[in-house]
Amino acid sequence: MSDMKEIKLTYFNIMGLGETLRFMLSYMGKEFEDFRIPTFPEWVNNYKKKMPFGKLPLLEIDGKPYHQTMALCRWLGKKCGLAGDNDDEALEIDMLIESFSDFRSTVWVYFYNSDEENKKKIRPRIIESMTPFYLEKFDNIIKENKFLANGKLSWADIYIVAVLGYFSFMVEMDICEKYENIRDLRDRVHALPGIKEWVEKRPQTHW
Amino acid sequence: MSDMKEIKLTYFNIMGLGETLRFMLSYMGKEFEDFRIPTFPEWVNNYKKKMPFGKLPLLEIDGKPYHQTMALCRWLGKKCGLAGDNDDEALEIDMLIESFSDFRSTVWVYFYNSDEENKKKIRPRIIESMTPFYLEKFDNIIKENKFLANGKLSWADIYIVAVLGYFSFMVEMDICEKYENIRDLRDRVHALPGIKEWVEKRPQTHW
Repeated sequence: MSDMKEIKLTYFNIMGLGETLRFMLSYMGKEFEDFRIPTFPEWVNNYKKKMPFGKLPLLEIDGKPYHQTMALCRWLGKKCGLAGDNDDEALEIDMLIESFSDFRSTVWVYFYNSDEENKKKIRPRIIESMTPFYLEKFDNIIKENKFLANGKLSWADIYIVAVLGYFSFMVEMDICEKYENIRDLRDRVHALPGIKEWVEKRPQTHW
Repeated sequence: MSDMKEIKLTYFNIMGLGETLRFMLSYMGKEFEDFRIPTFPEWVNNYKKKMPFGKLPLLEIDGKPYHQTMALCRWLGKKCGLAGDNDDEALEIDMLIESFSDFRSTVWVYFYNSDEENKKKIRPRIIESMTPFYLEKFDNIIKENKFLANGKLSWADIYIVAVLGYFSFMVEMDICEKYENIRDLRDRVHALPGIKEWVEKRPQTHW
């Protein structure tokens, strides 16, 4: 880890998916430049074409570009002991996070749907049916095992807690108000050294 | 690996995402029960509720259930030397496969969209714009590095080649006809020991 000197995160001025990397880096005690592209037109005109697959966040470490939050959080997790102690534990983390990702990407497509007619049509399936289905599963897993995988803290807990604010906004409910075990996990992750300080000092944004 | 005795894969009677696990297990020389649920009503009525997150494929190893193809292919990849030689190589594989996953999940939502009006509306963005954008990226990576990550065979190559048939169907074009480097990768993966035999003997399905 001592070889990571200059770390720069490029993202929008929101928590969103970029917050997962801000949480991981803060947990690891790593200083990073938290660069936020001010406006959407600036993103489209000046940055989008330079990104590996046209997307953010981008993480630059000593000038080298990296992308994809799950890939990066897994990689950072390995560096700080949060990626499982063996291949089977790593698998349990990955199964959980991939299920979350299935859920997230469906909600995402709903949320960014600009066809209001269609959005109204698919709302019952996504917001009223799929959302509680997944959230109850996660809530139960935490209730039984205290954490999302292997009964101990992993990068999956940090990842999912980091996007909870964003996610609550997308699924149109305060997830932590309704699911007490998810709320409890959030409070425990927010109290972790590094993350506690980050949550206190981070720019206040809506999602 | 000698501890994996009874392996059962439950999926639909298609290639689809399940084919990724059939390819990996075949490459590893592992015998497995290739159980295919015959009809969609049977899936809904008799199986769906028993799945970890209501989804297929399900992989059972000595009676223990596992799910999520990317998590499982990464795990199997570690067991057969196809998951990178160090954390940085593993990251490169993961970044690539997550970008493919972004692409796949968007195409997926388009493909399974039952609102024909909306489907027509989003088609230009997904099929005419996003699809060639991603396929050209992958094609170029293969052209430059022979494989998708680290310039050598990894589970990402096997994963993506395994779903190419399915994927060609979803994006409404023969991917391998149009992108010669993807086609070349497909031919090389199809010629791998174990996978060669699997491709010759597998049930013929449309996608």
